[in-house]
Amino acid sequence: MAMKYTIPHEVVYYECDVNGTMTLSSMVAVAIKASEEQSDSLNRGTDFVHQFGLTWIVTDYQLFIQRLPKVGEKVLVTTQAIEYNKYFCYRNFWISTEAGEELVRIETIFVLMNIDTRKMSSVPEEIIAPYESEKTKKIKRFPKIETIESGEKLPFRVRFYDIDGNQHVNNAVYFNWMLDVLGYDFLTRYAPSYLHIRFDKEVEYGNEIDSHFEIIEESGEISTHHEIKIGEEVYCEANAKWQVRN
Amino acid sequence: MAMKYTIPHEVVYYECDVNGTMTLSSMVAVAIKASEEQSDSLNRGTDFVHQFGLTWIVTDYQLFIQRLPKVGEKVLVTTQAIEYNKYFCYRNFWISTEAGEELVRIETIFVLMNIDTRKMSSVPEEIIAPYESEKTKKIKRFPKIETIESGEKLPFRVRFYDIDGNQHVNNAVYFNWMLDVLGYDFLTRYAPSYLHIRFDKEVEYGNEIDSHFEIIEESGEISTHHEIKIGEEVYCEANAKWQVRN
Repeated sequence: MAMKYTIPHEVVYYECDVNGTMTLSSMVAVAIKASEEQSDSLNRGTDFVHQFGLTWIVTDYQLFIQRLPKVGEKVLVTTQAIEYNKYFCYRNFWISTEAGEELVRIETIFVLMNIDTRKMSSVPEEIIAPYESEKTKKIKRFPKIETIESGEKLPFRVRFYDIDGNQHVNNAVYFNWMLDVLGYDFLTRYAPSYLHIRFDKEVEYGNEIDSHFEIIEESGEISTHHEIKIGEEVYCEANAKWQVRN
Repeated sequence: MAMKYTIPHEVVYYECDVNGTMTLSSMVAVAIKASEEQSDSLNRGTDFVHQFGLTWIVTDYQLFIQRLPKVGEKVLVTTQAIEYNKYFCYRNFWISTEAGEELVRIETIFVLMNIDTRKMSSVPEEIIAPYESEKTKKIKRFPKIETIESGEKLPFRVRFYDIDGNQHVNNAVYFNWMLDVLGYDFLTRYAPSYLHIRFDKEVEYGNEIDSHFEIIEESGEISTHHEIKIGEEVYCEANAKWQVRN
């Protein structure tokens, strides 16, 4: 059984939107912080991974949301590197109340990328061993992402503060591009209950992207489809489900 | 002597830009968090102030930067509500290393605004007394902000995630609008050593603003002037000084 690692976190006002609940991008940022702290505690931090000429990237996040954490709430953020195969590492996160109630579960796929060639690398034993993840031969697929049939779009220019230490647009920024286009009325009426996002290509400084979206209402269920494109090329895609806010 | 209040803070990767140093907007966000915690500890939190139909707003920040905090660095954030007069409260912040070295000093002016009329209110004793600030009759002026003589501009649309619980654009967002326009080469070559920002009017959701700027080089000193405008009207203005990064 892989090791779990937990950090406490108090939800700060600037991690919340106008609803007073935590944004998806803040939840993902805090989750990644927990996994970085686990890696540091196992001496498998960024510098160790860089010795192999490699860096971690996340290709998929699935968020299962029971309830969004609220401003001022004290939560626990737990992470576990569940299992891995030759190329893919599966890591879960849980955000829960101090009393142990699960608020959000996040399932992710991590891969190692060669810093020079930008190509995917197989996972070296020296990097993965300390997490005590289960080694498997099977490749666990995340659900297919439904594409947009007929939608609208808004353009976004990549800003300086959107890029991170790897010179690429930080994952959190894609969440904001995708959701902002839904507009104030939608985002104050509905809260996300599920989101699956996949990163296909890296957007860079100087790019201008289009955030395409489609809102689908089917037998009272609201779902949305999202694509971040440059011209005709898809860089990032997502599906989400929504519920009326309390 | 007014009471000081200190919180520890570890600089997280998502508070830093591509240089690996903390952004001005993150420093201000953490500073505001410290002052909110002090207010809560004195039972003068948001709810208490709302009983008077009032809310705090910051009109001016002056940042004096010796060195920007780095990713992973553990710092102390201290705040002190120095003094006040009928309308204006002067609050200072310091970000320092654990060894006590001062990295950044932030001087601010807070005012109380009536939530309904959006007008400035005089400062009730019941709200200010527990901070033990000095009461003065003098009005302390911050330096004049130099306007732009001939500059360039870029437009920004207010996004959903730019607005906070007060339905207004969060202060931190103005920093990013103002600095983003300087571009990658400038922002990786230079670090800010000083910034004075003044908030004149409130930008709201649905607005599109122009971020005007001018870069001035005089006897080897680099400074920049900034204005956030809607049409001809100035909503926010700033002056900054810059040094070559180490």
